[in-house]
Amino acid sequence: MYNELKQRVLDANLKLPKYGLVTFTWGNVSEIDRESGVIAIKPSGVEYDGMRVEHIVVVDLEGNIVEGTMNPSSDTATHIEIYKAFPKVGGVVHTHSRSATIWAQAGIDIPALGTTHADYFYGDIPCTRKLSQAEIAEDYEKNTGLVIVEEFCHRRIDPMAVPSVIVAGHAPFSWGIDADDAVHNAVVLEEVSAMALATRSLNSGIKIQPELSDKHYLRKHGDNAYYGQR
Amino acid sequence: MYNELKQRVLDANLKLPKYGLVTFTWGNVSEIDRESGVIAIKPSGVEYDGMRVEHIVVVDLEGNIVEGTMNPSSDTATHIEIYKAFPKVGGVVHTHSRSATIWAQAGIDIPALGTTHADYFYGDIPCTRKLSQAEIAEDYEKNTGLVIVEEFCHRRIDPMAVPSVIVAGHAPFSWGIDADDAVHNAVVLEEVSAMALATRSLNSGIKIQPELSDKHYLRKHGDNAYYGQR
Amino acid sequence: MYNELKQRVLDANLKLPKYGLVTFTWGNVSEIDRESGVIAIKPSGVEYDGMRVEHIVVVDLEGNIVEGTMNPSSDTATHIEIYKAFPKVGGVVHTHSRSATIWAQAGIDIPALGTTHADYFYGDIPCTRKLSQAEIAEDYEKNTGLVIVEEFCHRRIDPMAVPSVIVAGHAPFSWGIDADDAVHNAVVLEEVSAMALATRSLNSGIKIQPELSDKHYLRKHGDNAYYGQR
Amino acid sequence: MYNELKQRVLDANLKLPKYGLVTFTWGNVSEIDRESGVIAIKPSGVEYDGMRVEHIVVVDLEGNIVEGTMNPSSDTATHIEIYKAFPKVGGVVHTHSRSATIWAQAGIDIPALGTTHADYFYGDIPCTRKLSQAEIAEDYEKNTGLVIVEEFCHRRIDPMAVPSVIVAGHAPFSWGIDADDAVHNAVVLEEVSAMALATRSLNSGIKIQPELSDKHYLRKHGDNAYYGQR
Repeated sequence: MYNELKQRVLDANLKLPKYGLVTFTWGNVSEIDRESGVIAIKPSGVEYDGMRVEHIVVVDLEGNIVEGTMNPSSDTATHIEIYKAFPKVGGVVHTHSRSATIWAQAGIDIPALGTTHADYFYGDIPCTRKLSQAEIAEDYEKNTGLVIVEEFCHRRIDPMAVPSVIVAGHAPFSWGIDADDAVHNAVVLEEVSAMALATRSLNSGIKIQPELSDKHYLRKHGDNAYYGQR
Repeated sequence: MYNELKQRVLDANLKLPKYGLVTFTWGNVSEIDRESGVIAIKPSGVEYDGMRVEHIVVVDLEGNIVEGTMNPSSDTATHIEIYKAFPKVGGVVHTHSRSATIWAQAGIDIPALGTTHADYFYGDIPCTRKLSQAEIAEDYEKNTGLVIVEEFCHRRIDPMAVPSVIVAGHAPFSWGIDADDAVHNAVVLEEVSAMALATRSLNSGIKIQPELSDKHYLRKHGDNAYYGQR
Repeated sequence: MYNELKQRVLDANLKLPKYGLVTFTWGNVSEIDRESGVIAIKPSGVEYDGMRVEHIVVVDLEGNIVEGTMNPSSDTATHIEIYKAFPKVGGVVHTHSRSATIWAQAGIDIPALGTTHADYFYGDIPCTRKLSQAEIAEDYEKNTGLVIVEEFCHRRIDPMAVPSVIVAGHAPFSWGIDADDAVHNAVVLEEVSAMALATRSLNSGIKIQPELSDKHYLRKHGDNAYYGQR
Repeated sequence: MYNELKQRVLDANLKLPKYGLVTFTWGNVSEIDRESGVIAIKPSGVEYDGMRVEHIVVVDLEGNIVEGTMNPSSDTATHIEIYKAFPKVGGVVHTHSRSATIWAQAGIDIPALGTTHADYFYGDIPCTRKLSQAEIAEDYEKNTGLVIVEEFCHRRIDPMAVPSVIVAGHAPFSWGIDADDAVHNAVVLEEVSAMALATRSLNSGIKIQPELSDKHYLRKHGDNAYYGQR
């Protein structure tokens, strides 16, 4: 019934090993169908080799399985909170890609240091606060989503202008208008994370000029964007 | 006679170059058949290209060759001590994978800094003490195994909860319920070693929250584990 | 009409993913036909997979499209300024290759530290000054080109002897006698940038001996060059 | 006439790109036929793709071309000095492999920090002194060889026990009993160079235990070696 949605989610998941963002079964991508209110997501702990469209699980916004015979990703509840809070998000991806995870483990925002970052992210990529003991003990995956949402609300960051977050002590989540766009942003996140690591070791105090960040973000994403074939 | 065992050991050895854990003939994987008390292991100094099942050597727990015409890995005595001391271990692997070896050379435990680590290792991955001059001079490979076992005993670490060790000045050993699982853990060890290197350079004092480590380890490995398709 | 020129530009663009210099559609290569005063350049935001010769856009030195149906690279105005100011340049390439971009983000010249550098670059590779707010606000891409040219003029650097620059907060541009040569220099730039990063972390004050730099540059590029098959 | 020698030299040269030790035409391998006193070596500035046995140049110990129509590598005179001074050397290789070149540029010996190093190199890998202005001005490549030989003589290092050197401000040379063995050692050199970089950044004062270095070197290379299938 949700075959096109599931196919797109399968395709987006298979891009994770292609772009070197995952080891083994780590990582998961989902996409939401806002009209019918269902989410298609990778099954839990299944290898990318041999993954087929019938393995993709469809759940509703309460996490109930609507279609599929496998367990959905154990991170499904995090995806759901992101979809609930950020209405323009159409796809979500979670990986443990190396450089972004390093920043998450260090518990430090990924600073905007150049135009590679500014082309996709309008400002620093936030690192969440740590979850409390109670938030970890019960409904951990849901609370991970809530902490992500909290970070964007408190800091008044537009999630479509900064389509990634790192969770303290854990790893990144990225999103976009659909599953494919989410994975695209995850690839860029990994690249800018790697660049930021070495940039800060060369010049610890450096930041991008705000006007350069504005220029690059807006020439790709603003109302008068002129990058690409539009 | 031990063809299935040897085939599994061959397959696991061939995963070492596939996952980028070895250069040339470095590295070796073994698996034990606890019932018959024999260990199948890679031959010493043989290239992975062209390695066939008949090259795999079967030895008993005293290191005597039971089947096979080649010399077993020069590290066989280390494998044997691990099997003797840790009864739940079914497979052992030794590599000089780059990032884990860096921590071994530095002589520093690989610290648990994030959930990537906690998903597989319940706490820091220990670095052994240095071997004494006498331990190096005679029965070096056996003593390497004994020093590994000593480290887990003295620190009261469950080897199945922390299925890797780094030997000071040398390189890592990993293990698991069988040869394939041991290699799986060796891949993860290399990834978390690389992440820990850069994390510590960004934030030298950081540690994972103990409750986050518990949560991630137990959701995959505890009695109430809910990761995957079980 | 400009099919040979466009084919060379296509071929040079396809070398960017081959040498690992680009992610997605990032990066662009152009070549100038000095006689007819036209430049062939990559279209904006088009994937390398499936790029064909008819996608290459031909523009004149005012940036007007002479041939082609797609928008030229958004960086076309930067290429044009380089061609206008440096009459021996026949090809220009822009990438966000990781290590060179790290130096650009740090805002530090890439220092000449060894013969790998000296074989291709006669001295440090300059980092431009930051663009002013006004230069960013209007004609940003043209001003990027002007700032590059300014850096070479003020420092009296021969652009053919140092065929690369890094733009502060942004990324590198390289050039050469044609598009293929420009890409060749971009590959070397990335390699020497990576080497310089780690060299400086090992030995922060080191520089190449000037006479060694002279020797290596001149044995490949001087009047009495003796490297290769000439 | 020297077809077998040339074939071995071609094969060894083609291993340089295979093992990721070279960019473009960088790097060159030679092998000596001690009986006839000739050296086969890669031609200068020729691409590895499409290199054939007839491109390999045979020279005598004065550097005169004995067979072949191309110019020999511009580093031929360095190879010759190594062959002249070290009578057990049968093959020589020069690369600009990244990590070894970083140590060369930093002008620091590559320290023996673990058994990966000790399995192949009996002690630190020396960095030469800088060449003088006069040594660079005339007979530069020959003087590079003489400075290498000087370093081993002054420090009383056996070149067969430490089959690599790094030339200050330049890059590594490795050697072995034949061309293939030289390339093998160049691969190991690159790996131990990369490991040493990160090890020293984790623990700046660390050294390998001398008795561990002895043990590993001698179990592979000593009179009573027991590694491999001998």
